[in-house]
Amino acid sequence: MLSAMKNFNYANITRIVFGKGQIAKLPSLIPSGKKVLLTYGGGSIKRNGVYNQVMDALKGYSVTEFSGIEANPDFDTVVKAVDIVKKLGIDDTFLLAVGGGSVSDGTKFIAAASKYSKTSDPWDMVTSGGKGIESAVPMGCIMTLPATGSESNNGAVLSRRALHAKCAFNSQFLFPQFAILDPETTLSLPTRQTANGVVDSFVHVCEQYLTVCMHADVQDRYSEALLNVLIDNGKLVMANPCSYQARSNIMWAATQALNKWICQGVIQDWSTHMIGHELTAYLGMDHARTLACIQPRVLRYQFDAKMMKLAQMGNRVFGIPKGIIPQMAMETVDRIEQFYEETMGVPTHISQYKVPQDRAWIEEVVKKFTDKKVVLGENKRITPEVVGRLIEDSY
Amino acid sequence: MLSAMKNFNYANITRIVFGKGQIAKLPSLIPSGKKVLLTYGGGSIKRNGVYNQVMDALKGYSVTEFSGIEANPDFDTVVKAVDIVKKLGIDDTFLLAVGGGSVSDGTKFIAAASKYSKTSDPWDMVTSGGKGIESAVPMGCIMTLPATGSESNNGAVLSRRALHAKCAFNSQFLFPQFAILDPETTLSLPTRQTANGVVDSFVHVCEQYLTVCMHADVQDRYSEALLNVLIDNGKLVMANPCSYQARSNIMWAATQALNKWICQGVIQDWSTHMIGHELTAYLGMDHARTLACIQPRVLRYQFDAKMMKLAQMGNRVFGIPKGIIPQMAMETVDRIEQFYEETMGVPTHISQYKVPQDRAWIEEVVKKFTDKKVVLGENKRITPEVVGRLIEDSY
Repeated sequence: MLSAMKNFNYANITRIVFGKGQIAKLPSLIPSGKKVLLTYGGGSIKRNGVYNQVMDALKGYSVTEFSGIEANPDFDTVVKAVDIVKKLGIDDTFLLAVGGGSVSDGTKFIAAASKYSKTSDPWDMVTSGGKGIESAVPMGCIMTLPATGSESNNGAVLSRRALHAKCAFNSQFLFPQFAILDPETTLSLPTRQTANGVVDSFVHVCEQYLTVCMHADVQDRYSEALLNVLIDNGKLVMANPCSYQARSNIMWAATQALNKWICQGVIQDWSTHMIGHELTAYLGMDHARTLACIQPRVLRYQFDAKMMKLAQMGNRVFGIPKGIIPQMAMETVDRIEQFYEETMGVPTHISQYKVPQDRAWIEEVVKKFTDKKVVLGENKRITPEVVGRLIEDSY
Repeated sequence: MLSAMKNFNYANITRIVFGKGQIAKLPSLIPSGKKVLLTYGGGSIKRNGVYNQVMDALKGYSVTEFSGIEANPDFDTVVKAVDIVKKLGIDDTFLLAVGGGSVSDGTKFIAAASKYSKTSDPWDMVTSGGKGIESAVPMGCIMTLPATGSESNNGAVLSRRALHAKCAFNSQFLFPQFAILDPETTLSLPTRQTANGVVDSFVHVCEQYLTVCMHADVQDRYSEALLNVLIDNGKLVMANPCSYQARSNIMWAATQALNKWICQGVIQDWSTHMIGHELTAYLGMDHARTLACIQPRVLRYQFDAKMMKLAQMGNRVFGIPKGIIPQMAMETVDRIEQFYEETMGVPTHISQYKVPQDRAWIEEVVKKFTDKKVVLGENKRITPEVVGRLIEDSY
């Protein structure tokens, strides 16, 4: 047990513009004279009216569109936009990402790759975790799918399906200038995406909180605050998808969950995400659903390291009475699974999803982790062999 | 009861540099070539070693000193520094405030007044609440007395004793560029200042939280998180003033309490502060102690408006079992008073402090509020006459 929080250095410049009708504020947020490159996904923003709101607000701007950014954005897709930015003029362009975290993440790649000159291949920028990024084209986000927190942090995750790769990168230059969060744009989200967003946000908090106890009380209590909000409003939104109250609380909690605030000064453990990314890369599973499968196994395997925090979470989040610590902690893991399964309707076993029968891919993951010398967990106990076993256990 | 949070627009650019030894990072935070105007108070930073740390870190910079900024900084004191900035060169100067909230607030005045040109008298800038501020000299803070949150917000409070005046003002240009928060600098704080800081932060949270219920769950739970942290670590620091753990948690909570995050999208009620300021202006009482006297009276007078939130606070902060709402709410007010009196050693009646016997000043306050047409409270029920009665009740 550590006795107090660690030193930290943190700033987050992203302006949050929250609420109904805020898309109309775009002209106050994008400098006049900039050419806007509007990035989005498969077109859901045209069906839900967001596209029209954006185009109305951008009257007077020169707008170019780049659509087709897929869930788990692919290098081979977004790299095509870099040439568009160069044609528009790197210094004249403002990137506006409209959609979910995938669009925001893909747009962060475009923002950085357009100015990347360290090597001739911008994929290097991604695999190095963002090293070599020395500036970026300015960008803003209109977030329509609360989940990743990408709208107000400086990180992104990019996939490259051709290589079965999914990599995270970040840079101080990748904070969006602003994030417009209008809960009304989320009222029409399908149940599956709504549930995914809540589970994803919930796990984000856990990765920063369910580690070793170090008496960083503000961070702990903030994290517990967010977990409580996600549980309360997860229930509410499943019963009443049109509740602005639930949608607004989920949206604000999702941003807070990963704006890199609650992780300052504490030890984190992103094992669940690191393993989960592989399930997406090999099985094509939704990101949040990989987390729901992997996290309970990680928590049980790392039980000794996380026990005190699990018990604390059980008491403060699930209302488990104070008692014998290991029992409280064990019950907390069960309650997390129940929350995913019963409240949010998100199964916690890979076999409950439509995925290929073949499990040979697990060996590939083990080999890849071994080659890269990846060892996970706050105590480095999750070796590549353990990763393989945890994935097997998740079926 | 309102059904969901209101729209908001928020950004906070202040970089937080938190932890032991962080003062040494100053050269990475102040552009080289800037002339530093170091502002501080009565010299406690010389006794506790902070001054030497700062001067060591600033080797290579041209440093000018402006000391003597008093608690509740006075216009007639800080206005003298404006000429110094002008002599150093407005565009060449960087203001570095070292001390508590009073030094930070006074320095914000200097930052804005040095560039103020709307009228010939910078007091107008204060009395107008900050209107007319169009830019400011850049500043940073080294906060050594956690309480006001001034180190990472854009507001300040200035007194003018000659006029019995105490006014708040703010501007988007008044966010410090950075705030260095080293809990070690607070280990030697006297008990009274330590207790004042905890109570002040606690009331800051309450002014943004103990209002009408509007289902802004993130804001509510964040506020409750901070209240819990302040209670837990308030106890700890009174028993063990040298606890880095307690000092670090209090320091971080105090910043969060007033960085204008928890108030976004909710209704606030700063009645306690507005009335408390008058006790400081007329009786010279410590700011936090005025709040401890006034707040319980405001909460009881505004009981109907605040009852739901008081009951919620009672359950989530003081662990009062759920039951009959008005009883829970009533008990919550009692528990707040007990926290100030018993845990923090801060009396909640004016007569417990050494103040002049004469109460004629109350009539002056009532007259002043009447002349200015000040009406307080989320439901505007606190008229000037009521202010007078609440002050009488606080004796």
